[in-house]
Amino acid sequence: MTQPHTGNTAGRIVPTEINGRPAVPFQGVGKYRPEGTKAAPPLRTCADYPDSGSKIVANLKTALQNAGLRNGITISTHHHFRNGDKVANPLFEAAAALGVKDLRWFPSASFPCHAPIIDHLESGVIHHIEGSMNGPLGDYCSSGKMRGMGVLRSHGGRWQAIQDGEVHIDIAVIAAPTADPFGNANGVTGPSACGLLGFALADSIYADHVIVVTDNLIDFPCIPWQIQGNNVDQVVVMDSIGDPSKIVSGTTQLTKSPDRLLIAELAARFVRDAGIMQDGFSFQAGAGGTALGFAIFLKEMMKDAGVSARFIRGGSTKYLVEMLEQGLTDYILDGQTFDLDGVRSMRDNPNHQDTSPFTSYNYHGKGNFASMLDATVLGATEVDVDFNANVVTHSDGRLLHGIGGWQNCLFGKCVILPIPSVRDRIPVIVDRVTTLCGPGDLVDVIVTERGIAINPRRADLLEAVKGSDLPIRPIQDIKAEVELLCGGAPTPPSLGDKVVAAIKWVDGTVIDCVRQVKT
Amino acid sequence: MTQPHTGNTAGRIVPTEINGRPAVPFQGVGKYRPEGTKAAPPLRTCADYPDSGSKIVANLKTALQNAGLRNGITISTHHHFRNGDKVANPLFEAAAALGVKDLRWFPSASFPCHAPIIDHLESGVIHHIEGSMNGPLGDYCSSGKMRGMGVLRSHGGRWQAIQDGEVHIDIAVIAAPTADPFGNANGVTGPSACGLLGFALADSIYADHVIVVTDNLIDFPCIPWQIQGNNVDQVVVMDSIGDPSKIVSGTTQLTKSPDRLLIAELAARFVRDAGIMQDGFSFQAGAGGTALGFAIFLKEMMKDAGVSARFIRGGSTKYLVEMLEQGLTDYILDGQTFDLDGVRSMRDNPNHQDTSPFTSYNYHGKGNFASMLDATVLGATEVDVDFNANVVTHSDGRLLHGIGGWQNCLFGKCVILPIPSVRDRIPVIVDRVTTLCGPGDLVDVIVTERGIAINPRRADLLEAVKGSDLPIRPIQDIKAEVELLCGGAPTPPSLGDKVVAAIKWVDGTVIDCVRQVKT
Repeated sequence: MTQPHTGNTAGRIVPTEINGRPAVPFQGVGKYRPEGTKAAPPLRTCADYPDSGSKIVANLKTALQNAGLRNGITISTHHHFRNGDKVANPLFEAAAALGVKDLRWFPSASFPCHAPIIDHLESGVIHHIEGSMNGPLGDYCSSGKMRGMGVLRSHGGRWQAIQDGEVHIDIAVIAAPTADPFGNANGVTGPSACGLLGFALADSIYADHVIVVTDNLIDFPCIPWQIQGNNVDQVVVMDSIGDPSKIVSGTTQLTKSPDRLLIAELAARFVRDAGIMQDGFSFQAGAGGTALGFAIFLKEMMKDAGVSARFIRGGSTKYLVEMLEQGLTDYILDGQTFDLDGVRSMRDNPNHQDTSPFTSYNYHGKGNFASMLDATVLGATEVDVDFNANVVTHSDGRLLHGIGGWQNCLFGKCVILPIPSVRDRIPVIVDRVTTLCGPGDLVDVIVTERGIAINPRRADLLEAVKGSDLPIRPIQDIKAEVELLCGGAPTPPSLGDKVVAAIKWVDGTVIDCVRQVKT
Repeated sequence: MTQPHTGNTAGRIVPTEINGRPAVPFQGVGKYRPEGTKAAPPLRTCADYPDSGSKIVANLKTALQNAGLRNGITISTHHHFRNGDKVANPLFEAAAALGVKDLRWFPSASFPCHAPIIDHLESGVIHHIEGSMNGPLGDYCSSGKMRGMGVLRSHGGRWQAIQDGEVHIDIAVIAAPTADPFGNANGVTGPSACGLLGFALADSIYADHVIVVTDNLIDFPCIPWQIQGNNVDQVVVMDSIGDPSKIVSGTTQLTKSPDRLLIAELAARFVRDAGIMQDGFSFQAGAGGTALGFAIFLKEMMKDAGVSARFIRGGSTKYLVEMLEQGLTDYILDGQTFDLDGVRSMRDNPNHQDTSPFTSYNYHGKGNFASMLDATVLGATEVDVDFNANVVTHSDGRLLHGIGGWQNCLFGKCVILPIPSVRDRIPVIVDRVTTLCGPGDLVDVIVTERGIAINPRRADLLEAVKGSDLPIRPIQDIKAEVELLCGGAPTPPSLGDKVVAAIKWVDGTVIDCVRQVKT
């Protein structure tokens, strides 16, 4: 590695400088202590804003000019539309047309629909991306072609980085399904309704300049105001800001695989039989196919037992919405709607509460919601025998996924990873994960189709399921069985020295990095 | 005046130093430009807060000790219960029992129920009060007995002062009718429901340490969360935090005086006949008896004309709630519920939206709601022939009222002051107001039982009502008539040199001050 580097307490060699700024190596869970104060945005005065409350400007290009677009600044966008976003591409086309260079793009996540951004990385308009890179942009980054280092953060880590002043946003651009001329905006109403705008909340509060882009301008007041117009400088109206049908893209289909359904069922049985499924309990289930299966199995078990939850954490789907509507939970606390039933429910049901990375995930706050969850179900691309887990790279080393809220959710009281033991004939349980995203001391249970492994650290859980008919096994046993089946451990990836992306922990320290994949 | 002082652009002699810190004299509306950045609260880490999310401590005294109570710090409280508050008194009793001195009390407002605070001012526990002082505390301040200088700010000015770092709050104590152990809190549910908690919002965001006090602790999550637990350090449970029936205290009774009903009707007719009452218009009416009368008359005129409003700004009362429920407005945007119908409506009706001084009033923001109002109806204790107005002192010089949102509302498109021309045989229209709270260039119309005076600056309004049967008269005529009736202008108050309180303008500059009343 040519960049300055050091080993961190997780035994990973990580860069100590990222894009010219010093970086702190991971020091262990809860060990790094932040100092100083939160980022402080500039003071403004109403004297500079129209008394009428109308901040509408003609188009994105004008808005960027008014916002002081210049070389080298940071522009943020958000992934509420996931693969259906129609704002980031025209935004950077407008920036390119204005002739600027070396921008830092700071999306909350990027998706395959953002492949055209590669042209701007090639032409120099964008210097590098800090944010999840799902698909083509991750692949591009993996190849080592991006000029700067990618930085991957969890949803909570993104809030933390903005709040702590680690990332200063010059211009935030927020695609909003409904907005008023003052800039109040929400995601639950309008023809492009996609749910909520929580991922843009930090940007709206801390950025120097905030532009709301909408395709549904209504008279003041836009209620609810998930984004407050008092933080907004300009409003731009476009024909279409996104395709909400594509928020269901990628991971949010219920699995049809018998193996994965078995894994989902085992995970639900574990939650029941370990005594976690009690009246007033709480759980989080993501939008991956297996996690959806888990929720469906758990729902039936809850019905059978006459148990209801106090709250469920989304990403919401129609399955969680059904549980709310059937009285199986008092509340859904939702950070991201993953289908249109979720959008409808959040709009119409006051017990379907939108949340933000501040409430749910920010580690540099006075607590957050994630640690209160009784059961948290998450995915992983790899786990190792020490229960360390990877969620961003494949075993070939390619960076293809974002972190999402995954790291933040590891603070739940019982963290369960229901994963297949084999993917594409490659073992998923390994000696050492390709990229360390979550330390093993926060992962409690691995559920595979070949059995359930409980982290030995959790003697309480081992005790709780003693006598149940759950297939509890040491993780080494499952690993050995899978390697026998696959003809050995996975082939190590062919990696260069160059670090293409840093993986931040929830406290802003560097837990690992991703190296260039040799092609 | 022995304190350092200067004349400001409004021709008032004001202190240039307040409680040992420099103060900027008023420079004219929209002239003073803030520099620098917002106040930045200290970074925290979840490592220091319980994973369970429970922040409950035994009592106020323990909470104050945990919060680092010490001599000379600033403690804030809020007036959501108005004259029914039961938290501020035991809070300062606990502080006194812990032996601290020289505290600055920074309430959003104080009421007659806080008279026991005088003992703490006398004993040295509290050094001085910055915040509205209604009744006995104002009288005490007027007498010159308070050691420090009082500072009166509007609701928006209080947000501005906190946000701009002008007032640093060490410990915020927030009385919340419902809260969960994490500190999420609201004012719309629970046995003491009083409405909303908007006046505490800035404190919850910017204070070093935040204590929520509730008499209705529920399981997480407390929804809605008008105060976010992520900003809260500790939660204290008390038997009773306040008497919500007393939010109706003081100003919120409909007038029965024939003169005041006439004034209210004239104000409503003015809004109608000047063409302001159009479909989709907006207005603000406070909770004073005359303002309530105005709303009731206007409601009938709107019904007759088949006109409905886009939004009404509260303080809400049953009269505004009826308008919402009868379809005469799309929304109520409400900063303070003034009766239990307001509380109920805010809780149950999604179109009754709670607001905060940030959204509605903060002048050092990217616009606010106040300037968008088509008609704004406010009270005053005095006005002068240049339309300058006073809202804090009586003509005998005594400081008996807070500013509330009054200064902030002056930015509405048509500001109307419906006031009696005489109070207790003393003329209300004067040559020079005892205390200048609002500059005449923001006051458009004075409505009295003897006629309506339009600010000559508003040629458009004079034109709009030409030909109507409204009794439009020059303000000097009304003044002369009243003086004839009362036997002359009011006797000037007997004041000492000592400045007992500074009056801040919405931008943090000093527009005037209040001097000791000789007794």
